[in-house]
Amino acid sequence: MKPEKVPEATITRLSLYSRFLDEMLARGVEKVSSVDIAKGVQGTPAQVRKDLAYFGDFGMRGVGYNVANLNAIINEILGVDHPWKMILIGAGNLGSALTHYAGFAKRGFRMSAVFDNDVNKIGMTLNGLPILPITQLVDYVDANGVDIAVLAVPAASAQGVADLLCETKIKGIMNFSPSSLVSCDSIEIRQIDLAVSLEGLSYRIKNK
Amino acid sequence: MKPEKVPEATITRLSLYSRFLDEMLARGVEKVSSVDIAKGVQGTPAQVRKDLAYFGDFGMRGVGYNVANLNAIINEILGVDHPWKMILIGAGNLGSALTHYAGFAKRGFRMSAVFDNDVNKIGMTLNGLPILPITQLVDYVDANGVDIAVLAVPAASAQGVADLLCETKIKGIMNFSPSSLVSCDSIEIRQIDLAVSLEGLSYRIKNK
Repeated sequence: MKPEKVPEATITRLSLYSRFLDEMLARGVEKVSSVDIAKGVQGTPAQVRKDLAYFGDFGMRGVGYNVANLNAIINEILGVDHPWKMILIGAGNLGSALTHYAGFAKRGFRMSAVFDNDVNKIGMTLNGLPILPITQLVDYVDANGVDIAVLAVPAASAQGVADLLCETKIKGIMNFSPSSLVSCDSIEIRQIDLAVSLEGLSYRIKNK
Repeated sequence: MKPEKVPEATITRLSLYSRFLDEMLARGVEKVSSVDIAKGVQGTPAQVRKDLAYFGDFGMRGVGYNVANLNAIINEILGVDHPWKMILIGAGNLGSALTHYAGFAKRGFRMSAVFDNDVNKIGMTLNGLPILPITQLVDYVDANGVDIAVLAVPAASAQGVADLLCETKIKGIMNFSPSSLVSCDSIEIRQIDLAVSLEGLSYRIKNK
């Protein structure tokens, strides 16, 4: 279950397979083939089989995959078979939108607090979450065993926050700020650049 | 310049190479090697060369790539060598955050208007953009030659908006709503699911 060199794209596709399997489960479908999965995610059956083969042999020839089993296996691979503790840093528009983003909690990523340095916001709540001063960040993270911080602060503040997080036991940062972060080895960073997705779209439109 | 079967992941990496080249240009660097680019984006030199080879042979052995030339070529491939006209649909928190997202305009994706069906919002502005009634959507898109619509509406409204857009000459939809869309053949759709990125992060944390 800890294979080397699994491509990033395979991991992304596992997330998409899992969403398709959720949908099948909700409809009461019990078995699916790699052809069904491929159709559901606009991929190819060969790619589906290759992606899954990194982790084991889960289907039965001529029968396909048991939907519930395969979904549980994928969720375990992705690490979403148990909840993750998250905090949000930055109570602006994007931060506010992210607290409302239902897709996180649905997959087990649970926000418990928001941090900001704006005295007008501290003490208020954002979608039911307390807004705490950034000075409490380090203590809060370790006292509450927070796994992941979502950064939605201005570019100029992002590295300072990442440096603060290096003093904690936090494991990952999802960075929405438009600036690459340098962090300590103990923290995995995901840089979210929404324009990258738009460029994928403009490429497809141009080459249609 | 219109190669078949370029992997989605290659297109994503081209966007990242372009960001690295922008940074090098800003620093006055004139030449880079595939090793430099790989370091800048945490990839491998072989991957960089393979990605670029889909489109041509742009470097000189032992000399590397001319930063300005390579960047211009990548931007042309991605279609961001000219501006794209965008609108936003949905003036909620996420929509508001997206109008402030500097990364779009920086890459030539320019928003001109916001559409909503909330009578309290119509006639107001969002980050300087007019908020127009959804009833004007079809006319506005074709009158202004809009290329791309960014959807930030509740899941239950997304398909209805996509259906409306099928009546226009729009070319692409970037969908932030947590619901897959069925659309007409003339429209390319990008589904943005922020939890997929989080699952990539949880996978990396788990397999560290």
